Amino acid sequence: MVAPLKVGIAGLGTVGAEVVRLIEQQARILSARSGRGVRVVAVTARSKAKKRDLDLRGVTWAKNALELAHDPAIDCFVELMGGSGDPALSAIEAALKSGKSVVTANKALIAKHGLRLAKWAEQGDVALNFEAAVGAAIPIIKTLREGLAGTGINRVYGILNGTCNYILSRMEQEGLSFAECLKDAQRLGYAEANPSFDVDGHDTAQKLAILASLAFGTKVAQNAVYVEGISSIKPEDLRAAEELGFRVKLLGVAVRTAKGIEQRVHPTMVPKSSSIAQVMGVTNAVTIDGEGIPPITLVGPGAGGAATASAVVADIVDVARGIRAKPFGRPVERLRATSKAPMERHEGGYYIRLMARDLAGTAATIATRLAQQKISIESIVQRHPDGVDALVANGKASPVPVILVTYATNEDAVHHALEAVQRDKVISGRPQVIRIEKN
Amino acid sequence: MVAPLKVGIAGLGTVGAEVVRLIEQQARILSARSGRGVRVVAVTARSKAKKRDLDLRGVTWAKNALELAHDPAIDCFVELMGGSGDPALSAIEAALKSGKSVVTANKALIAKHGLRLAKWAEQGDVALNFEAAVGAAIPIIKTLREGLAGTGINRVYGILNGTCNYILSRMEQEGLSFAECLKDAQRLGYAEANPSFDVDGHDTAQKLAILASLAFGTKVAQNAVYVEGISSIKPEDLRAAEELGFRVKLLGVAVRTAKGIEQRVHPTMVPKSSSIAQVMGVTNAVTIDGEGIPPITLVGPGAGGAATASAVVADIVDVARGIRAKPFGRPVERLRATSKAPMERHEGGYYIRLMARDLAGTAATIATRLAQQKISIESIVQRHPDGVDALVANGKASPVPVILVTYATNEDAVHHALEAVQRDKVISGRPQVIRIEKN
Repeated sequence: MVAPLKVGIAGLGTVGAEVVRLIEQQARILSARSGRGVRVVAVTARSKAKKRDLDLRGVTWAKNALELAHDPAIDCFVELMGGSGDPALSAIEAALKSGKSVVTANKALIAKHGLRLAKWAEQGDVALNFEAAVGAAIPIIKTLREGLAGTGINRVYGILNGTCNYILSRMEQEGLSFAECLKDAQRLGYAEANPSFDVDGHDTAQKLAILASLAFGTKVAQNAVYVEGISSIKPEDLRAAEELGFRVKLLGVAVRTAKGIEQRVHPTMVPKSSSIAQVMGVTNAVTIDGEGIPPITLVGPGAGGAATASAVVADIVDVARGIRAKPFGRPVERLRATSKAPMERHEGGYYIRLMARDLAGTAATIATRLAQQKISIESIVQRHPDGVDALVANGKASPVPVILVTYATNEDAVHHALEAVQRDKVISGRPQVIRIEKN
Repeated sequence: MVAPLKVGIAGLGTVGAEVVRLIEQQARILSARSGRGVRVVAVTARSKAKKRDLDLRGVTWAKNALELAHDPAIDCFVELMGGSGDPALSAIEAALKSGKSVVTANKALIAKHGLRLAKWAEQGDVALNFEAAVGAAIPIIKTLREGLAGTGINRVYGILNGTCNYILSRMEQEGLSFAECLKDAQRLGYAEANPSFDVDGHDTAQKLAILASLAFGTKVAQNAVYVEGISSIKPEDLRAAEELGFRVKLLGVAVRTAKGIEQRVHPTMVPKSSSIAQVMGVTNAVTIDGEGIPPITLVGPGAGGAATASAVVADIVDVARGIRAKPFGRPVERLRATSKAPMERHEGGYYIRLMARDLAGTAATIATRLAQQKISIESIVQRHPDGVDALVANGKASPVPVILVTYATNEDAVHHALEAVQRDKVISGRPQVIRIEKN
C-alpha cells in the first residue's frame, strides 16, 4: 500500500474551501482512482478566524504560504491565493525547489512566471499542474498536453472569458447596449467593479498565451498577444451579424501562419453554424484544429468555485498517480521564443460598418476605394433606418448604415481603403471593423 | 537519456498505416513531449505484399499478431486489427502478460473483454489505453479517467455513432426518409452494406458501456444497455421536433438514478438550444454532467483514419511518458456489477405522435386516458395534413396527426395510457413514442 498523498493548501477562499470539501467527500473514489489516499494535512489563509464551514480538525495551520511550502510534512503544494507575484510566486518556487509537486489555478502567475517555474519542476521531476487556470473544469490543458500529443496543431481558438460572452450574448438577445449589459454583469457578480481586465481582453490574452505554448511549443508570452476588447461593439453590429449568418464573440486565437504563430484577442465574427457560435452566456469553449482531422471543441464552465475546484482536484489526483507530464508539454528549453504578430499583415475576411452620408455617391466611392486595394466584397447590406432597403436611394437625409463583408484580404489593405473613404468625406464618424474567423 | 519506446503494430489498414506515418512525421515533437524517442520497430498485417506507401525499411515483419505480442524487442503492442475475439484478444493478452503496454482502438473487444484485459494490465503495472475506441480523436476516455477524476458524475450522454447522426441530420434538413438517407450514407461510405450494427444502436451501446464504466465505476456490460435504433423515425417526427423546439438524436445515455445506473441507447428528443443538438452530420459529441458543475461537452470527429490514429498516437505517447492510469479509472476489483435498468420504470418526458381517426372524440379520449395514468401534457399540436390547425374540427376525413409532449412521467404509465387509447379505437396504426432528454 502506497502512503497517502499529503496535500497543503494555500488560500481558503471559494475555490480553496471547495477543494477541501471535495477531497473529503470523494475520499473513497479518489483513492480508488489514484491507488492511494489523498489527504489535506496543512492549510494557510489570510484569516484563520473567518467562518468557513469546514472541518479542519487535525489539519495544521501554517503561518503563511512560504512556511507551508517548506513544510516537510506535505508532498503537494496547492496554491489558490491568486496574484501574479508574491507571496504566491515565492511559495510555489520554494515548494518546487524542495521537491514538492505544485497545483495552481493561477493563470496570471502561470502566464507571467510559468516558464521559470516549469524549469524548477522539470529539474526536480515534480509536477506543476494548472488545469484550472484556463477554462476551469474544461480539460483543455490536459487535452493539449496529452490528448493531442500525437497531432500537429494548426489553430486553437476560443471563448475564454465568461464576462465578455455574457455581455455579448445579452446584447445580441435583447438588443441592449454594452454599458447596460456590463452593469447587469456587475450586479450579478459576473464582472468586477473595475471590468477592464475582462472586457478589454487581457484575461483572455493571458489564457491564450498559455494555450498557445501548449499547442505550438512557444514560450508563454502575454506581450506577444495582440489585444482588443469588446467595448466598441454596438447592438447594430450584432443585428447585422445575425442577418449575415454570423455571431460576434470575443475570441482568443492562436494560429500557425507562414510568418509564425499569430496570437490575437479581439471581437470576432464567427459563422452561426460553428460550435463556438452556439456558446452563450458565461460558458467557455475552445476549438482545436489538428492537422488532417476535423476540429475538436470543448465546451463548459470557465469559472466558478465548484468548476475550478473540480480541475484542481483532478490535478491533485494526477500528482497522486505519479503522472509527471512536462508542464508545457515539452521541456522548457525546447520552447521557441515568439514575437507579436504584426496585425497589419493579418489575413482574413472583414466585417465593415460605415455611416454613409449620401448613399448613391458613397456606394461608388467605397467600391472604388476597396477595388484600389484589391479587396473583393462578399456581401453588402444597405438599409434605411426605417427598414426599407435603399441601395440606390439618393436622398440627403441622416446617414444610413452600410455593411460590407469582404473576402479574405489583409488588414493593411482594409485600413488604407477605409482611410481613403474617410478622406473622401462620404461617411460620417469612424468605420467599425470586425475580423471574421472561419471554421 | 531514456531509451526510445519500441512499438509493434498489428494491423496496417487505414488507421495502422496512418499511425506509422504520424510517428515518423512527428518524431521530433513526440520525443520532446514524451522525453524519449518513439519508434515503430515491428509490424504485422494480413498481407505483407499489399502496396501501402509506407517506408518500412528496418522494421521487422512478424508472422502474426501473437508472434508480435511475444517479441521481446517491443515495449508497446498496438492492436489495430479489430474484431471482438481472436486473434486480437489472444495477442493483447499475451502482450500484457509479458509486461508490455497495449494500445488499441478496438471498442468491440474492450466492451466484451476489457475487464479481463485490464486485470492483466494492473497485475503487470502496464498500460491498456483505448482512447480511440470511443469518439476517435475526442479525448473522452482521458477526460473521464483523469480530467474529471475529482468530480462525481451524474450523467454522461452523447452522439457516439456518426452514421446515425448523419442519417438523422439529412432526414431533418432535407425531409427525406430513413431509407433514402441510409442509401446515401452507404454510397458515401458512412454506413456498412449491413447497416444494422450502426442503425440499430449496437455500436453506440458498446461505446456507452465503456463510458459508463469510466464515469460510474461499473463493470463494462454491453448487455446492461437498453437498445433501440433509429429505423422507425419518420420525417414527420423531425418536423414536429423542430416545431416543438427539439431535435432528434440517437443518444447513448448513462445516468445515476435512485434505482442504480441506467444505460440506454435510443432516439431522443433534445432541446434545440443544447450543445448536443447543434452537432450535425458524422460528428460525435459527449456531454458530462458533473456534481455541482455545469455540463461539459466535447465535440469532434468520431471516426476516420486520421482522427483515430491521432488518439492512438496520443495513447502511445502516454505509454512513453510512463503514465499508468488504471484502464477503467479504478482497479477492476473495485468496479461494481450493474444490471439492465428496467425501462418500464424510466422517468422522463415523452413525445407521442398518433394518427387520430376523429379529432373531436380523439382529443377527449386521449386526455382522459393520460389523466388516468396521471400524465400531464406540456404541449399538444394537432394539424390537418393541409396545414390548417384543427383542434376542434370534427370532420370524418383521413386520420390526422396529433402530437403530444408530456411532462416527466414514467414509461409504464405511457404504455398503459397508449394501450387504452388503442383499445378505444380512436387512432389508426401504432403510436410513435420518443423519449425526451433534458439538458
